[in-house]
Amino acid sequence: MKVIADLSVVPIGVGVSLSKYIAACERVLREAGLSIRLHGYGTNIEGEWDEVFAAIRRCHEVVHEMGAPRISTTLRLGTRTDRSQTIDEKVRSVETKL
Amino acid sequence: MKVIADLSVVPIGVGVSLSKYIAACERVLREAGLSIRLHGYGTNIEGEWDEVFAAIRRCHEVVHEMGAPRISTTLRLGTRTDRSQTIDEKVRSVETKL
Amino acid sequence: MKVIADLSVVPIGVGVSLSKYIAACERVLREAGLSIRLHGYGTNIEGEWDEVFAAIRRCHEVVHEMGAPRISTTLRLGTRTDRSQTIDEKVRSVETKL
Amino acid sequence: MKVIADLSVVPIGVGVSLSKYIAACERVLREAGLSIRLHGYGTNIEGEWDEVFAAIRRCHEVVHEMGAPRISTTLRLGTRTDRSQTIDEKVRSVETKL
Repeated sequence: MKVIADLSVVPIGVGVSLSKYIAACERVLREAGLSIRLHGYGTNIEGEWDEVFAAIRRCHEVVHEMGAPRISTTLRLGTRTDRSQTIDEKVRSVETKL
Repeated sequence: MKVIADLSVVPIGVGVSLSKYIAACERVLREAGLSIRLHGYGTNIEGEWDEVFAAIRRCHEVVHEMGAPRISTTLRLGTRTDRSQTIDEKVRSVETKL
Repeated sequence: MKVIADLSVVPIGVGVSLSKYIAACERVLREAGLSIRLHGYGTNIEGEWDEVFAAIRRCHEVVHEMGAPRISTTLRLGTRTDRSQTIDEKVRSVETKL
Repeated sequence: MKVIADLSVVPIGVGVSLSKYIAACERVLREAGLSIRLHGYGTNIEGEWDEVFAAIRRCHEVVHEMGAPRISTTLRLGTRTDRSQTIDEKVRSVETKL
């Protein structure tokens, strides 16, 4: 099952500068071979369900290893059985109607 | 790794009455032996990371099998390494300060 | 326009104990006269759109005044024009199908 | 109070093709003069709190007027008092650490 996800990871207990933790998480997602797209409040991820969730778990592990005692993550998850659609196709589908 | 999650599943393309799909998803979570708590805009889930995510995947599969061609889910995910905390403890921790 | 919302406020830069900030936010929502329901990963809120959002803004202001330099909040928002539905009705609608 | 938001609007009860509703919402945000950035699972929005929320309310109204009887929206909301930061600065702050 393919999934398009949108991930926003918030490390808690490490002060207000979070970008190094977010960058570490991005590297985990890239190393997992996932198709990703960073934006201003999270990251779009496209891939097989199990691969996406294994990478998100690894992301939590890495951010804890970096010293964050607590993490609060939000995820949006889209699956569909009617047809396949990539992140780029989703964006274009809206842009052509603007 | 333990996780406290909050799951809200929105089936798309099946009209406006969504409760039978949500109920099917609740049954999946219960059958997985997870500790859950239904509320007005989702369900709190407490358990081991891999068990929680296997159940959420199964929930998507079941809702698709019921006829929903598309699903958009939102998840909040909390993990912590400083101490363990249950859903009930989280709620009490706020209530005692009201 | 009526809205049913689900609010989760995460203060950043104040350590790992967040419950006193969450409790302050709960008091703001109550004082605004909104119908609310605390759960393990947020709070259900029911009310008129403008009243709900004025209270959420006030909640951010109060948490900043308490010393949190940064806040990351997640919200789910449901509106409908086909019929009115309360939080309790939403929960019962699922529970009767379990 | 400035806010950086991330908005994902899901119209319910209008089938599986949602892009025309999302595009209508984008136009509302642009016409409100807000700085926005469309991505694969939502839209980053930057602006003054009250202007951002007036536009999101207008977006719900327009999508209902287009025929959607029900809408389920998710929002992430970031405010900070320590310094100001734009969407582009947030993205660059992560990218320079990759």
